[in-house]
Amino acid sequence: MRPGCLILTVTKGSEIPLRTIDWNDEFETISMIDQTLLPAEVRTIECDNIGFLCEAILSLRIRGAPALGAAGGFGVALAAIKSRADSMEALLDDLRKVGDIIRSTRPTAVNLAWGVDRVLDAARDAYDTDGIRRIVLQEAKAIADEDVKLNKRLGAHGGELLHDGDTVLTHCNAGRMACVDWGTALGVVRSAVEAGKEIKVIACETRPLNQGGRITTWELVEDKIPVTLITDSMSGHVMRRQMVDCVIVGADRITQDAVFNKIGTYTHSLVAKEHNVPFYVAAPVSTFDFERMEDEVEIELRDGGELRFMAGKQIAPLDVEVYNPAFDATPMENVTAIITENGVFRPPFLLDEVKYKM
Amino acid sequence: MRPGCLILTVTKGSEIPLRTIDWNDEFETISMIDQTLLPAEVRTIECDNIGFLCEAILSLRIRGAPALGAAGGFGVALAAIKSRADSMEALLDDLRKVGDIIRSTRPTAVNLAWGVDRVLDAARDAYDTDGIRRIVLQEAKAIADEDVKLNKRLGAHGGELLHDGDTVLTHCNAGRMACVDWGTALGVVRSAVEAGKEIKVIACETRPLNQGGRITTWELVEDKIPVTLITDSMSGHVMRRQMVDCVIVGADRITQDAVFNKIGTYTHSLVAKEHNVPFYVAAPVSTFDFERMEDEVEIELRDGGELRFMAGKQIAPLDVEVYNPAFDATPMENVTAIITENGVFRPPFLLDEVKYKM
Repeated sequence: MRPGCLILTVTKGSEIPLRTIDWNDEFETISMIDQTLLPAEVRTIECDNIGFLCEAILSLRIRGAPALGAAGGFGVALAAIKSRADSMEALLDDLRKVGDIIRSTRPTAVNLAWGVDRVLDAARDAYDTDGIRRIVLQEAKAIADEDVKLNKRLGAHGGELLHDGDTVLTHCNAGRMACVDWGTALGVVRSAVEAGKEIKVIACETRPLNQGGRITTWELVEDKIPVTLITDSMSGHVMRRQMVDCVIVGADRITQDAVFNKIGTYTHSLVAKEHNVPFYVAAPVSTFDFERMEDEVEIELRDGGELRFMAGKQIAPLDVEVYNPAFDATPMENVTAIITENGVFRPPFLLDEVKYKM
Repeated sequence: MRPGCLILTVTKGSEIPLRTIDWNDEFETISMIDQTLLPAEVRTIECDNIGFLCEAILSLRIRGAPALGAAGGFGVALAAIKSRADSMEALLDDLRKVGDIIRSTRPTAVNLAWGVDRVLDAARDAYDTDGIRRIVLQEAKAIADEDVKLNKRLGAHGGELLHDGDTVLTHCNAGRMACVDWGTALGVVRSAVEAGKEIKVIACETRPLNQGGRITTWELVEDKIPVTLITDSMSGHVMRRQMVDCVIVGADRITQDAVFNKIGTYTHSLVAKEHNVPFYVAAPVSTFDFERMEDEVEIELRDGGELRFMAGKQIAPLDVEVYNPAFDATPMENVTAIITENGVFRPPFLLDEVKYKM
């Protein structure tokens, strides 16, 4: 069976895949929900070559820091299966090259590189080419399985910060769709709801690609968790009107001095600080990059067309200059706490503590 | 000739009407550029009944505080011409009723009510029904003519605040299209450019209706003033990176304690305060409503469909709850100065000074 890009239309509510991204043993493909089509359509695509995987990452069919970790791992596994190399050296060389290609698609997201590297490292334990192929797939599946477990642990820790009746403002999508399952920021909300608390969410639509308006709202509506959609610029207005008890966002990379997350996060952090609203970051330990400082991290600049067109229709002059960074950096002094699978950490944030405290 | 809603397609750059809104003496209609079609199309619509005028105001074919002042005035003039009343009392009664209807379309925008009231007040000077019809049209035309002149005065005062090489961040559209001509916030930029200064503009797209992305950018591209389009949420990022020398926005109503303007303005004011970037409001004296305090002003809530659909395509779950206030309030302590046709005012803002200082 050669799906190329097999498209399965899934009827709403009936057969939504359990995981955002997973390995399909039957087809030997990477199975993923095409997030660019949400919420109008829930479709799963089967990805059987690296070119298409890179396209899927670049065009955000698959996105979200933890989900990209799994995508990186599965990408190397797919390359191992597709490679015709018949010596260990040639195969490992193929995998390293593919790893570089995958990593380069989204330079700011640390989890993508982390997933690639973890699987490449695991390959070293093999004794032959079959062993490499077996181990890399095993390791990629382990990343996905662990992601679900650690998000539940993260959610349980973070859920304790929420009180019955709280309203949480979130930006972009750090939910089930950003991970393999459960979610980071929305995982915290889900865990609190599971623990019997009534929690409401205010979702910022998150321009220019509207992951908040399209994906966060869709997830929460599906789960029957009350959610209200606002534009990103309304965060000031709703916090000034005391409609928000805390902000919880995800992260794409956490350096010693800053949290890199979807563009707009920094603005929300300033608004939260002004109104004494706690500002929480929910992210697995794999997001930490404490060897680097903010100014050593490249911020991905995306195409201006994302602001000139919306849903295929022109919404700005065709020749207008556009500045479109995908991420911004929120300095640590604006962060009240970081929620990880190992617990809730407050400043000063020390890597050893975050990594090893259980 | 009965145009109903006559549509004239105007070719870009060749015959763009000189004024955003004006009286058409030939047809006895209100002529306006349909701003919902910008930037893809520049079309003028001729409006010959009050129902259509109200629809045009509600759906933002005509918008912007000063332009709404003219729309209110021309609306009463149109009603006077269309009314079959043959006594002064009956005609004035008709005009008052129409005035109430026009006023109610956008309750937060003070200029709309101001334009209606100014023309109704002028009608009192008439001796007969013909006199009323003549005077209200004269007064409405005077509002439009004065608007152009006062914007130029406002621009000249504000232009002195800008330095050669400055970059101005603006939100929504307080430009030529928000006025009869020239603009308030963009009028300041135009006056500075006319005075020989090099000024760049960063335009926030202004969700949900993208007046910044569609209209501000279009105006500036037409005028060859350098402009870069960003999403609203990027204001934090660009100010943190010191890419902005000052913020200039318009206003829809200025009370003793707050500036009401397009939703998102308050968030930008917080970002500006954090980064010590001057935050200027550019608005004619007719925008001042110093008899009221912030909490006495109703904020218009618009339809949730504006966030669920974009360019006719679904971008959020159909059943998701939406909060969509059209405006927010920026407290006076976040305002560095207010630029009016009578000069530049700094805190404390005293109405008598603003009104009468020349």
